Amino acid sequence: MTFTRQPLADCVPELVATARGDQAATLVITGGKLVNVCSGEILDGMSVAVQGGRIAYVGKDVSHTIGENTKVIDAAGKYIAPGLIDGHCHIESTQLTVTEFARAVLPLGTTGGFFDAHEIANVFGLKGIKLMLDEMRGTPLAAYMQVASCVPSAGAEFETTGASIGPEEVAEAYTWGEDVIALGEVMNFPGVVYGDEKMLGEIQATLRAGRYVDGHFTWPASDWRLPVYAAAGVTGDHECVTAEDVIERVRLGMYAKMRRGSAWHDVAKTITAHTKHGLDPRRMMLVTDDRSSESLRDEGHMDFVVRHAISQGVKPVTAFQMATINTAERFGVARDIGSITPGSCADIILLDGNLADVHVVLTIAAGEVVAENGRMTAKLNPFTYPDEVLASVHLPQPPVPADFVIHAPVADGVLATRVIQVMENHVETGEQIILLPVADSRLVVEDGLCKIAVLERHKGTGNKSVGVVQGIGFHEPAAIAMTVAHDSHNVLVIGNDDTLMAEAAAAVAEAQGGVAVITASGTTLFPLAIAGLMSAEPFEIAAAQSAAISKALYDAGCTLNYAFMTLSLLALAVIPTLRISDKGLVRISPEEGIQLVPLFVS
Amino acid sequence: MTFTRQPLADCVPELVATARGDQAATLVITGGKLVNVCSGEILDGMSVAVQGGRIAYVGKDVSHTIGENTKVIDAAGKYIAPGLIDGHCHIESTQLTVTEFARAVLPLGTTGGFFDAHEIANVFGLKGIKLMLDEMRGTPLAAYMQVASCVPSAGAEFETTGASIGPEEVAEAYTWGEDVIALGEVMNFPGVVYGDEKMLGEIQATLRAGRYVDGHFTWPASDWRLPVYAAAGVTGDHECVTAEDVIERVRLGMYAKMRRGSAWHDVAKTITAHTKHGLDPRRMMLVTDDRSSESLRDEGHMDFVVRHAISQGVKPVTAFQMATINTAERFGVARDIGSITPGSCADIILLDGNLADVHVVLTIAAGEVVAENGRMTAKLNPFTYPDEVLASVHLPQPPVPADFVIHAPVADGVLATRVIQVMENHVETGEQIILLPVADSRLVVEDGLCKIAVLERHKGTGNKSVGVVQGIGFHEPAAIAMTVAHDSHNVLVIGNDDTLMAEAAAAVAEAQGGVAVITASGTTLFPLAIAGLMSAEPFEIAAAQSAAISKALYDAGCTLNYAFMTLSLLALAVIPTLRISDKGLVRISPEEGIQLVPLFVS
Repeated sequence: MTFTRQPLADCVPELVATARGDQAATLVITGGKLVNVCSGEILDGMSVAVQGGRIAYVGKDVSHTIGENTKVIDAAGKYIAPGLIDGHCHIESTQLTVTEFARAVLPLGTTGGFFDAHEIANVFGLKGIKLMLDEMRGTPLAAYMQVASCVPSAGAEFETTGASIGPEEVAEAYTWGEDVIALGEVMNFPGVVYGDEKMLGEIQATLRAGRYVDGHFTWPASDWRLPVYAAAGVTGDHECVTAEDVIERVRLGMYAKMRRGSAWHDVAKTITAHTKHGLDPRRMMLVTDDRSSESLRDEGHMDFVVRHAISQGVKPVTAFQMATINTAERFGVARDIGSITPGSCADIILLDGNLADVHVVLTIAAGEVVAENGRMTAKLNPFTYPDEVLASVHLPQPPVPADFVIHAPVADGVLATRVIQVMENHVETGEQIILLPVADSRLVVEDGLCKIAVLERHKGTGNKSVGVVQGIGFHEPAAIAMTVAHDSHNVLVIGNDDTLMAEAAAAVAEAQGGVAVITASGTTLFPLAIAGLMSAEPFEIAAAQSAAISKALYDAGCTLNYAFMTLSLLALAVIPTLRISDKGLVRISPEEGIQLVPLFVS
Repeated sequence: MTFTRQPLADCVPELVATARGDQAATLVITGGKLVNVCSGEILDGMSVAVQGGRIAYVGKDVSHTIGENTKVIDAAGKYIAPGLIDGHCHIESTQLTVTEFARAVLPLGTTGGFFDAHEIANVFGLKGIKLMLDEMRGTPLAAYMQVASCVPSAGAEFETTGASIGPEEVAEAYTWGEDVIALGEVMNFPGVVYGDEKMLGEIQATLRAGRYVDGHFTWPASDWRLPVYAAAGVTGDHECVTAEDVIERVRLGMYAKMRRGSAWHDVAKTITAHTKHGLDPRRMMLVTDDRSSESLRDEGHMDFVVRHAISQGVKPVTAFQMATINTAERFGVARDIGSITPGSCADIILLDGNLADVHVVLTIAAGEVVAENGRMTAKLNPFTYPDEVLASVHLPQPPVPADFVIHAPVADGVLATRVIQVMENHVETGEQIILLPVADSRLVVEDGLCKIAVLERHKGTGNKSVGVVQGIGFHEPAAIAMTVAHDSHNVLVIGNDDTLMAEAAAAVAEAQGGVAVITASGTTLFPLAIAGLMSAEPFEIAAAQSAAISKALYDAGCTLNYAFMTLSLLALAVIPTLRISDKGLVRISPEEGIQLVPLFVS
């Protein structure tokens, strides 16, 4: 099935003819409870007429639009709501292709999103973004692309990545179409604040193209530099973890995106900006940021986030606004999506039971019924990635146990060692200085600590570094290796056994990408052949493989919530505090910015 | 003084440098109560730093941005609010040039607006719109132009106008710049609903250019065709006179503009959509539509409308939202205007006393202090209109009393005559059938009735028609003539004495435009030399001349509120019910549309 979203201008004559009854609607929904996100009301007994991909009429009576071939859907007893929109999402985090992501989320009521193909951009640059854009355009989703702004995230001096994007590339991406709508999260906020030319150049290119700049500011909301960041033209930010984070951003003219990803749970706190502090909710948005395929399957997507927000005390219609019209307005596309109004794209969901349950039973995207009762009814067109993208893991030789030895500058004794501290359900990491023993000039990493290593995989440089991490939880010999390792997506290996670490790394190299967990009981592999980031399998299989990884981690003692996602962020060299890249340990602090630091504290 | 509004993209490096304290702000406001329209809060102790035309920093402390040459304004005890924005305004209705309009409204706190040069468009077409745009661009206002959509308003078969605008002209206007932002009120809503090619073509040209379509729908909100109109892509409408009008429009995805012009007073009723019915106010806007220069002087501009809205029970911050950010969002320019946030244009007002009093004591536009304590402090550059625009009244010969005789088809007796009924404070007129006497084959118009005539003035055709009007109130021999006669702006003459009518018409023809009231006590003339619509005089003189017209009308017994504006609309051949044009009586009804009707009912 092919889905097309024509510009409103082209549809006007047919929409008007349909609305006045001179042309039969293609689809009609009758007599439901309309969730009107424009007026903030629930209106009973409302009907909707659709012509092609757009809504032609909304009113009490649409009988004049029904013809012989009009598909009629009775919504009696059901809610009719605009399809949910994800205001900030990295599809690669689901490890699914765009098409499989669409198959996963459409039955859950998500009909659109603002996607930041930041991960593939770190591997394949603009070419990667364009490929995912092309795939998006073939799905039923109202999908908009953001151009990854920070590739590499922290500068070539801190890590090796597969690609680099600057102001010229950003400007080029906007020429691809109006669906390339924004600059993706500008994580290098210190760069912006202190006038980094590349960052300001990308922002200027974005504003000149009439596009929007999304932010990513992790200093406290009370920091005097948040208004500096805002002055650069940044008008949205999802790095809100407290009510104050939301309030300060909105006060400064930003849209505050409240996140419920798999691995971080910010909504419960951030939503109190409205429920407790009375902030006008018009610039508050619900987003997922990163969700795994398992959490899509087991919890849901935007339906889950909206349900969760309502459970925190937001009025249902307000929560729907935060996942529909607010998001559409933030990106200037409220004429196309985000509400059930004449002229808008026919992205419509029907819900059963209580509205607060967000129980989606039917999804219409671009005027076509695509899912019913939790299952896709439409068949989506397959999309093929080029061979180059299917062979992206370039190690000079297969990893061996010796690669994971940490050589000490002393023969024995103890060394004050910087240790990365994992914090469950948070993006931030901690830094601890721990005295570790040395034996035979090698650091001994025991007592619940693990080694953590990054092997460069883009250019075959052979770069690698090894450090120490706390909080993984392995209670038996175990290792995990992955080519999903934000943001540069080199091979990240974590384990308490050098041999298992080498085996895990070799397994993902052999598979040309993926996640491997190896313990005494065997190998669990989740192949991610597309750029080393995404599975070539259908959603259901990928979710099962992802779940198998989680189970293997859990069985080995790593009981972190959404462990894989949390671990995959340990190499993210822009969020405090201690991280690791192929070039060594990286320390990030509000005061000192980003710096490479030695493993051992002298 | 020259005012420039640079694109945000060009300002980013300087704004960021200023915000972080590396470049001195040009202007700083310290320690006031900030009206934050983004968050819906009033925040005490807030300061603002400005660099050039834009805001660089907003926070508790801006001391780091103050340099030797920074102008510092102490706002202690005062409110700091975004400059007010008029979401729908015809400047020509003030009878002032754009420059004089700016001089009149800037001290009142209006710093921006969405202007529809619909009147000059009816006289000079696109050329007239471009001239006013050029004048706008030289003022301190954040002025955006809408392209008049209905020129002529009701089709050449109903009236003679000076110009015509269609889809090609509309598309051309958008090439002039991004400040040409929308299609002006699409008054021919029946045309839209029933698929008129020209109207749909203009709308399509607008949507293709990424611009916005403003509406004008006067059938009842309950009419089934309002959603048809919405399906055409119309997303704003100021023809709201009841709460239901507001509610239905917002439900259909439109912005509802609530009007407080000189001659119609809709806010008291329309605002109850929010205050009584609980509608989400985000898509409710306050506008003036048409205000006379006298009412600017005696009541105010947007300050008056906001004050009035608050007096009707709206929270002050919500009323400010309706005159700032809601309006900016409606036109997609909230990144530039409508809030006091970093990056926005520095359009800022200070207010004294209670916020509800909307007492503006200082106005900053594009970063410059332009007015203080009710007076302009900045001198604006003059703008010169070409000679052609100063000689636009073309009558084939001077009017004579015989022009105003109504010849009857019978020698004597009575004739059932259609009479236009004036309704104070409303745009609509009524239609009454009254039995009038005939003597010597001439209709006798007495007993408080007046004659009403339209003389074509654009092309020298000599076209004219004469009818009867009720409700003028003249209690002595009197006549008024005017070249402001919506929409075609032919010469409209009203009086109870054929000789005085001829003299009044001759006076405005002689002045090349204007308003003349002639009674036994003499002639009162308000010359309007620019297109026959606008005064070449400063605001103060024009307002005094306008007031003199009002007084002359009042003294003669015409005590209608803002009588001149009400009278000038009697020729508006698109709003129900009975009107007059140079081609005869025009009847407008929801059922039958627009039609020419005979004076006498057979």
